[in-house]
Amino acid sequence: MQEKSVTRLLLLLVMFCISNYAISQPPRGPLVISPQIHPDKKVTFRYQAPSAKEVKFSAQFEKAPVAMIKDTAGIWSVTVGPVKPDIYPYNFVVDGISVMDPANVAFFPNERFKASLVDIPGETPLIHAMRDVPHGSVTYEYYPSVSGTTGSLVVYTPPGYDKDASKKYPVFYLISGTTDTEETWFKVGRTNVILDNLIAEGKAKPMIVVMPYGNVEARIAAQKGGPKPADPMGRESEEAITRAKTFEADLMQNVLPYIEKNYRTINNKDNRAIGGFSRGGGQTLRTAFSNMDKFSWVCCYSAYLSPKEMESSYKPIYENASRTNQQLKLFWISVGTDDFLYKSTVEFMDFLKAKNVNYKSLVTDGGHTWMNTKVYLTQTAQLLFK
Amino acid sequence: MQEKSVTRLLLLLVMFCISNYAISQPPRGPLVISPQIHPDKKVTFRYQAPSAKEVKFSAQFEKAPVAMIKDTAGIWSVTVGPVKPDIYPYNFVVDGISVMDPANVAFFPNERFKASLVDIPGETPLIHAMRDVPHGSVTYEYYPSVSGTTGSLVVYTPPGYDKDASKKYPVFYLISGTTDTEETWFKVGRTNVILDNLIAEGKAKPMIVVMPYGNVEARIAAQKGGPKPADPMGRESEEAITRAKTFEADLMQNVLPYIEKNYRTINNKDNRAIGGFSRGGGQTLRTAFSNMDKFSWVCCYSAYLSPKEMESSYKPIYENASRTNQQLKLFWISVGTDDFLYKSTVEFMDFLKAKNVNYKSLVTDGGHTWMNTKVYLTQTAQLLFK
Repeated sequence: MQEKSVTRLLLLLVMFCISNYAISQPPRGPLVISPQIHPDKKVTFRYQAPSAKEVKFSAQFEKAPVAMIKDTAGIWSVTVGPVKPDIYPYNFVVDGISVMDPANVAFFPNERFKASLVDIPGETPLIHAMRDVPHGSVTYEYYPSVSGTTGSLVVYTPPGYDKDASKKYPVFYLISGTTDTEETWFKVGRTNVILDNLIAEGKAKPMIVVMPYGNVEARIAAQKGGPKPADPMGRESEEAITRAKTFEADLMQNVLPYIEKNYRTINNKDNRAIGGFSRGGGQTLRTAFSNMDKFSWVCCYSAYLSPKEMESSYKPIYENASRTNQQLKLFWISVGTDDFLYKSTVEFMDFLKAKNVNYKSLVTDGGHTWMNTKVYLTQTAQLLFK
Repeated sequence: MQEKSVTRLLLLLVMFCISNYAISQPPRGPLVISPQIHPDKKVTFRYQAPSAKEVKFSAQFEKAPVAMIKDTAGIWSVTVGPVKPDIYPYNFVVDGISVMDPANVAFFPNERFKASLVDIPGETPLIHAMRDVPHGSVTYEYYPSVSGTTGSLVVYTPPGYDKDASKKYPVFYLISGTTDTEETWFKVGRTNVILDNLIAEGKAKPMIVVMPYGNVEARIAAQKGGPKPADPMGRESEEAITRAKTFEADLMQNVLPYIEKNYRTINNKDNRAIGGFSRGGGQTLRTAFSNMDKFSWVCCYSAYLSPKEMESSYKPIYENASRTNQQLKLFWISVGTDDFLYKSTVEFMDFLKAKNVNYKSLVTDGGHTWMNTKVYLTQTAQLLFK
């Protein structure tokens, strides 16, 4: 007991020192270890909040928030699992307030929510795990975008890209979801690591992956000082379609020329792929269907177009299905059975089937999540440019 | 009144729709506009928390947290300022809990605290403001680091780097502070934008800037599954010095060779600079003083070494001051008068002066902040490699 008290006193002293260490910086918390992943795949999460009344743990692998318990030092903790190896977003809910884990650097880039990420390793390394293989690079690029704004792109180049200045590569344009940013495919989707691993295993062709920001209107507003536009309600609303057109125009008129000027790309449709998750999947379909001379590979993850929109905007796609089938080397649609877009996506696939438009589909367990999105990327990356 | 009620009802309906939009994603808040920067440099911050009892706004331009006021929709807000144009970290304090602004994508990468960033533009664009000039790129690199771990670097290449494959560049190794990450110089320091602007104005030489992660021990622990090491107490403690040595070894034995192999660098001391903020400033001094044949340009921002450490470890630096003065083309020390390291830094400068070691110093207002750090980077970048 005596010894314990001394330890506690020392701990408090250390905490006091740390919190006073950098006077002018935002306050640092004490050194809390969170998350702590145990060998049996259980995970302990900790959050320091001595005066909070209730702290819960919320994660995409839990059906409902889980109560955390406070120790005498004011640190709340909970051990959950074993958890199926994967990367999951999570939060603490502190007296009803959602907060990121201050002790964890890994975060989910998003316009509207803040979540931390926990990466539970598999017994054999998962496809998104950093392995001892040659690594590509991830580059943030700034390009002249619509309305005189500066756009940003995240660009993956495969291992060896800088070694042979004569080699050219195919390009995969990969778009993230509603309220995601151009960083989400990198930081949450781990596109670079997945591609590094697939390329090392000889399963994917070396390719450039270009990750644009999907919410072009928000960027224009931010740079022009206008009001921030709300997300349009409904994927088929007129506003959603107008905004998809703005994105498409930016992608085709600004992003493609920028990439093809500044990277060693093979500039024909058989060496261009387009794909996306959620809103990015809708943007993918709309852009591809309007630019059938530009892309031979189309990957739609957890998204769809309604038969109504197909009829009003993309009749040539299904009226001349045999031409479409010839034009597209891959038309991929995947969705999880728990996805809130599952029914609409099945309806979309049924529509295509009835019209004899070929597509490959992968229906998985799970919902509208980045866990599933990583699976879809992993599957499709192995098919592209072959 | 009637109309107002309808508007409110509609707003609530919209909020309800948005929050139920993506079932399996982390919960999104309603569309709250925050921060909103007004033309007179006042700024409105908003945070939605209907059941919170007290919400305060905390920022590096406020001496103390400011109370926010809740409206009938449960959105807390405060308008502050006018605020001197700059980038500032800020937080909401919700019933005593520090949270980032969920409505704001801009964040401060850090191991131990979570802060959002507000960028208040100047009447004439500040040096860190994205302007219509040629832009360089920022690349995330993965390199073989100490103890079989994979390290990460953020690398700025100047505009035109990819245009002329015969041109080689000088390199500035730039290290961030305690609990910062390899992203902090990019996301908070805006190194790339500052360099783009200085280069466009002809004020800085085109250069490569390499931003490593300063906390090598934490990376080893994370990748090897060991316990996360606490920050050593005190900048002059034995542990702090041991850890600086680990960083130095990684920089010299792994980072430099990786960069010089993979980028078009000019590989001599007159074309290598090293600099850093806070802990990174200490790492800069220690690395430079141990490798005087490798760096001719040394930039120390808000940091120092104690006379005691100078005497025990770096005697040759001041015992042969004329050689040191000849070896270093720039030895820069800057600090703010409110910095908690101000006194120690002045003591360090006095020590150097007494020993006839030449240095340039810039003492500014302000504290141990990234606002000051950007000023120091801007000043020194104009001196390097000239």
